[in-house]
Amino acid sequence: MHLDIAVLEGDGIGPEVVAQSIKCLRSVEETFGHSFTFKNGLIGASAIKQTGSPLPKETLKLCKSTDATLFGALGLPEFDDNPKAKVWPEQGLLKLRKKLGLFANIRPVKVFPSLVRQSPLSKTQVQNTDLIIFRELSGGIYYGYKSNDEDKNSATDTCTYTESEISRIAHLAFKSARSRKKKVTLVDKANVLETSRLWRRVVRAISESYPDVELNCLFIDNAAVQMILNPSQFDVILTDNMFGDILSDQGSVIAGSIGLLPSASVGLEYAMFEPIHGSYPDAAGKNIANPVASILSVAMLLQHFKMNEESDAVVAAVLKSFSKKIVTPDILGSSKYGTNYVGDFIADNIM
Amino acid sequence: MHLDIAVLEGDGIGPEVVAQSIKCLRSVEETFGHSFTFKNGLIGASAIKQTGSPLPKETLKLCKSTDATLFGALGLPEFDDNPKAKVWPEQGLLKLRKKLGLFANIRPVKVFPSLVRQSPLSKTQVQNTDLIIFRELSGGIYYGYKSNDEDKNSATDTCTYTESEISRIAHLAFKSARSRKKKVTLVDKANVLETSRLWRRVVRAISESYPDVELNCLFIDNAAVQMILNPSQFDVILTDNMFGDILSDQGSVIAGSIGLLPSASVGLEYAMFEPIHGSYPDAAGKNIANPVASILSVAMLLQHFKMNEESDAVVAAVLKSFSKKIVTPDILGSSKYGTNYVGDFIADNIM
Ligand SMILES: CC(C)[C@H](C(=O)O)[C@@H](O)C(=O)O
Ligand SMILES: CC(C)[C@H](C(=O)O)[C@@H](O)C(=O)O
Repeated sequence: MHLDIAVLEGDGIGPEVVAQSIKCLRSVEETFGHSFTFKNGLIGASAIKQTGSPLPKETLKLCKSTDATLFGALGLPEFDDNPKAKVWPEQGLLKLRKKLGLFANIRPVKVFPSLVRQSPLSKTQVQNTDLIIFRELSGGIYYGYKSNDEDKNSATDTCTYTESEISRIAHLAFKSARSRKKKVTLVDKANVLETSRLWRRVVRAISESYPDVELNCLFIDNAAVQMILNPSQFDVILTDNMFGDILSDQGSVIAGSIGLLPSASVGLEYAMFEPIHGSYPDAAGKNIANPVASILSVAMLLQHFKMNEESDAVVAAVLKSFSKKIVTPDILGSSKYGTNYVGDFIADNIM
Repeated sequence: MHLDIAVLEGDGIGPEVVAQSIKCLRSVEETFGHSFTFKNGLIGASAIKQTGSPLPKETLKLCKSTDATLFGALGLPEFDDNPKAKVWPEQGLLKLRKKLGLFANIRPVKVFPSLVRQSPLSKTQVQNTDLIIFRELSGGIYYGYKSNDEDKNSATDTCTYTESEISRIAHLAFKSARSRKKKVTLVDKANVLETSRLWRRVVRAISESYPDVELNCLFIDNAAVQMILNPSQFDVILTDNMFGDILSDQGSVIAGSIGLLPSASVGLEYAMFEPIHGSYPDAAGKNIANPVASILSVAMLLQHFKMNEESDAVVAAVLKSFSKKIVTPDILGSSKYGTNYVGDFIADNIM
């Protein structure tokens, strides 16, 4: 199979981890006889510095003209610390998600048996965790009307959801549950928010078409507790953009490191694959970043194109790196292996 | 000292836990020679059932005419499961907070040495935790313009903050930090939300008047991870209504049970004291609910009225119950002690 892949390295540790993913894709090419071409685009702080825009037009064009996008990470503290800035890196990612119509961010949270000890939670608590979060990605408070009026000294963000925005991702979640443990948990704040009440109404109605799947509803404050206390109770979690952002980062605690979790962002036409971690500028250039989240995002990419064997081979190589303790220092404090070495090891073991 | 106290038991386990708090206040009365009068008011599901309203006018009047309000818990699943309901219990609490001008909800999270093992997190992780959350309580997305239009099949919630809403609670947080570890962490999502950018601007400006206090800013997704991985890094956490709701429930994981954490909601004129837990209808009437969160809320009430010795005596009695293992089953699975017994023990040991 031939795939054209847009590569958006972004900021901080983005370029380093994406470089390992490309090694792995090269290895998949060779082993399985595919052909992948990689085309780089600018995004985030580096794009602002070079072009003034966090998402240059060429980058959007690139993503639309390729089969899939591999994304690294973005953000730099100098932008966070300037509340008056008119342009900042994250706007690039948010605009890209919107323009590509990526309405579902899919984040699997699994505890790898060889890394169970890595989790700060007890073994019995986390060992059977195997859940998947369906986070709505192109609506809600991220995209509603906003204002920040210096004279009036007030600011506003608006959260709006429509039935169709909810139903398209709900169907994905129910379909996924069908091939899993047949349980969907809707996380919301329906005792306070009208958007949550709409989510409940729409999702309950949809659940009637999936009589084999059980539907539960949980308030976000309780869900944040349950994710830590008893994560193995969950199968598929369905939630909005903001709650999904919080819950899925929390999921990384279960897995033992935020450097482990991949994600796929999908829409009707396009798909993008990205680690759930951020750009960690403090770690950039030090060869200590964990490339696994990005590499597992590649496994999700391959699966997306039905290259299941190839995807499994990538996951197997990652698991081998765990069992041989070829891991970065976030996993094993005493580890002397760097980003590059771990990337090479995994790429070499894709077979 | 004489205090008139409004008592709003609410739903589920509310009445049971509040009954233990009243025992403790009676014991404080006797031991320290004060006089407290208690006046009951309706709120929540029980108020809806009796009057049609989740916050009857008489209840509001009662709270305004007394020195402080002791609140239990509210909510019943039959309301959560009806997304078309026009009236539901939580509206009573939200309206009460607003009408009493309770703009700051103060939630201390402490790990009690005798209960360290109770936490699902490791001892080294949690043992030095002593943080306090200042959650904005009468603004934000809880109170902005809302709509839920069945014909258009869309719903909206609006989050608005003004500089003055932010600055009044920020000052409370900085003042509290001054008497503690001198560190304020603002939790927001300033890379996405305009309201968060306003929070950053206002809080940074205010921090200049507290040069002895260090200010950090953290995104909510990262904060939710840090609360679990390394809670002892925090001193005072300052955040908005929605993020505060999520973070403070998460705090209960650190402490080992949501049945342990109290809170004070304060404004310029009124103050209300409530456990952070909900109404747990499944536990209602079974004499298994943990009364400690409510009793520690009483300690916060006493402190609010500068009865520091009295407040310390209540906390000491609670600690004694822990060390004697006179605790409810959420703390010790094998415990045979019920709500009433634990309440009696604590009340009897206030001296
Ligand atoms: C960088 C930021 C805008 C983004 C988000 O909040 O969606 C990130 O936290 C994520 O989860 O992908
Ligand atoms: C009952 C609910 C409306 C309330 C809130 O979200 O504020 C509760 O969760 C709390 O934290 O006091």
